Amino acid sequence: MPQYLLTHFSNYIGQQQLFDPTQKVLLAVSGGLDSVVMAHLFKAAGYNAGIAHCNFQLRAAESVRDENFVRELAAALDLPLHVIQFDTAAYAASQHMTIQVAARELRYKWLEEIRATGGYAVVATAHHMQDSVETALMNFAKGTGIAGLHGILPKQERIVRPLLFTLKDTLIAYAAMHNISHVEDSSNITDKYTRNFFRHHIIPPLTEAYPGAVKNMAGTIDRIREAEILYQQAMEKHRKRLLFQKDNTWMVPVLKLQKSVPLQTIAWELFRQFNCSPAQVKQVLQLLDSESGKLVETSTHRIIRNRAWILITPLVTAVAPLVVIDTPSGHITFPAGQLRIKALEHQPGNIPASPAIAWLDAAQISFPLILRKWKQGDYFYPLGLPKKKKLSRFLIDQKLSLPQKENVWVLESAKRIVWVVGMRIDDRFKITEKTRQVISLELDK
Amino acid sequence: MPQYLLTHFSNYIGQQQLFDPTQKVLLAVSGGLDSVVMAHLFKAAGYNAGIAHCNFQLRAAESVRDENFVRELAAALDLPLHVIQFDTAAYAASQHMTIQVAARELRYKWLEEIRATGGYAVVATAHHMQDSVETALMNFAKGTGIAGLHGILPKQERIVRPLLFTLKDTLIAYAAMHNISHVEDSSNITDKYTRNFFRHHIIPPLTEAYPGAVKNMAGTIDRIREAEILYQQAMEKHRKRLLFQKDNTWMVPVLKLQKSVPLQTIAWELFRQFNCSPAQVKQVLQLLDSESGKLVETSTHRIIRNRAWILITPLVTAVAPLVVIDTPSGHITFPAGQLRIKALEHQPGNIPASPAIAWLDAAQISFPLILRKWKQGDYFYPLGLPKKKKLSRFLIDQKLSLPQKENVWVLESAKRIVWVVGMRIDDRFKITEKTRQVISLELDK
Repeated sequence: MPQYLLTHFSNYIGQQQLFDPTQKVLLAVSGGLDSVVMAHLFKAAGYNAGIAHCNFQLRAAESVRDENFVRELAAALDLPLHVIQFDTAAYAASQHMTIQVAARELRYKWLEEIRATGGYAVVATAHHMQDSVETALMNFAKGTGIAGLHGILPKQERIVRPLLFTLKDTLIAYAAMHNISHVEDSSNITDKYTRNFFRHHIIPPLTEAYPGAVKNMAGTIDRIREAEILYQQAMEKHRKRLLFQKDNTWMVPVLKLQKSVPLQTIAWELFRQFNCSPAQVKQVLQLLDSESGKLVETSTHRIIRNRAWILITPLVTAVAPLVVIDTPSGHITFPAGQLRIKALEHQPGNIPASPAIAWLDAAQISFPLILRKWKQGDYFYPLGLPKKKKLSRFLIDQKLSLPQKENVWVLESAKRIVWVVGMRIDDRFKITEKTRQVISLELDK
Repeated sequence: MPQYLLTHFSNYIGQQQLFDPTQKVLLAVSGGLDSVVMAHLFKAAGYNAGIAHCNFQLRAAESVRDENFVRELAAALDLPLHVIQFDTAAYAASQHMTIQVAARELRYKWLEEIRATGGYAVVATAHHMQDSVETALMNFAKGTGIAGLHGILPKQERIVRPLLFTLKDTLIAYAAMHNISHVEDSSNITDKYTRNFFRHHIIPPLTEAYPGAVKNMAGTIDRIREAEILYQQAMEKHRKRLLFQKDNTWMVPVLKLQKSVPLQTIAWELFRQFNCSPAQVKQVLQLLDSESGKLVETSTHRIIRNRAWILITPLVTAVAPLVVIDTPSGHITFPAGQLRIKALEHQPGNIPASPAIAWLDAAQISFPLILRKWKQGDYFYPLGLPKKKKLSRFLIDQKLSLPQKENVWVLESAKRIVWVVGMRIDDRFKITEKTRQVISLELDK
């Protein structure tokens, strides 16, 4: 019912805790019906929003028309506007990517940048119920596990989907009721072909068999999302029973694993974090019946049968590298990416919220800075927490996978950690009212 | 690959432990390609099998043609044959059922009867991979939970599906390779319309989008089947935490339930066994925020808020009925069905394996027999176990739902339980080499 759309919209945002009504939200608007209706709903509900539009310059005059349309929309709704033109084709060529992958990468990277620097809490995209159902069906047909059947999530890190509760038809009816115009949508460029095939050749016959198919499937998806939580609860118990760490080696008891049910899935969940492919998980299961010394190698780990145990060790234990930074300016290239460092005069205003950017109080910092991998025994004062915390504990709380954990770097000043790079600065070095000069560090992965 | 079909077939039966190679298997054969190939595979693999054919008499001459075809097949393969003609239309009319439901009911009831009386261990049906995928997709589109996505199971009680591992195309190729003829399949009568729609209008476009779609989906289904085991493991823990029994009342602590995650699914799994519909589960969740005395009534139970608890009590606690059986002959009608009782001379041979039939040693029995509902404190010696067992414990092991448990009856002789009706006889009354006369009891639900 289009007349209730606005109420349902606000309710859904509240129920799913997508953002706090006082926060600023960046709306990804292509100019297509879905995103234009979303912008109108944000305005009508009185949320604090800004509009972001990507011009991928893939359709010549049409791309220009879309951009102009969104410019007029932002003016009409009196919302701040951010626009960018990408040379998508050139980027795709230089990065050896398909146009689709390139457009998606450019879009999400830029949206996150605008979000972080513009003081927005989250980015909102206009995916609706049928998009989510299509995603689940596509995964089903491609082959997936339980996680592939939960469809599009309402909230994922800094991205929210406030229209997931509604059908496309309701958006169309709402637009008609309020005389909202739009251009033909080009935002689905990123996965246009297969998705459009599902939209035009799978969903319609399904709806013919069961008139409520899209809603029914959305219900299925919601239940699968809850089932997945139970699945993870059970997996957590198995992990505690089956996986032990000793220094840099992980150990799995052969007998206990052998008796575990359901074996295939438990093994997959245990070993995937060591970069095991599904085929390699099968090889690992063969180790259960092998003699000592048989092994499987993933891109990062060696998994070896050793008497009553499966032992997992990192492939390379390289000498820990270390980078010395002498001055507050320039680019530093290190194994986890690039760091840009500069000094700024401090002016009151927004401090970037992105974890990829660290703004530190220059007065608290002493050069040279040391950039190194984290190690056991490290601790720091995470921004926002008044207490010292072991870095190992902090990384557990951040739910990093093992390979991610092995690639965490820290920045030190006078033997004190000032930044867990790309994740959290130390509270002792944050910007305060007294800050005059800022050291800005920006991570590019 | 058709040339490997026979090997894969035997491997699959072994892996999934569908039956023991020494056991007799009853094959449900319509005369269609799938079931005819199945019969040939059983013969070629050397299993001990018999053929069962239902003539539903719904398609006049064609039904006769199919029956004759199966008669010739059984003769050619030299396998025992069981055939029945149903007046399906009349039965459907008398039972106020659709033809589909009637055919399905007649078929499974008769197959089970032949299985039990013919000394067969299991009934085999010819469902293949695509049937299973279609079932999962149909459930997805109708709306389902995780259990609806696991497709057709390889083994369910006494029914096995030994062709689930293979594609229809492989069956077709195998038939061509071995010059196996068949008639047009009429076995899918039971769910012909929707299933055929999926077969002709959903699967082909899915296969166009992803050429391996059917195999991919079968892989998805296998993983969901394992995920469901993890789901049940987690639910078992929640059940232990949240559901307590005291006499005939079940209790759920409000605070603990309120904090449980994922709440919707946990509540559904807890309350469905008391015949809560999905809509009623929502009402029960509202009791969490209600005052004492608010309640929800299902067809069998009252669910009431009482201070810090949700209490669940059976709706009617009727006076326990009791039936006295004086002689070993005749029909007894009681609330759980009909019992046929007769005395037979014992002749060596197969004792019926169906739990619906009890054969007891007449020498051990003394009349009158008492037929009554089970009660706390009952115990017996389950057939095959040398030890006394509490009946309450036995019913837990049988995984009966609560309403099923409330409808369990026992047959007593001289204050000793001789049969848990429809489930298990007592070991002390079984047929032995010394048995001369048999008391046969047969339950008709």
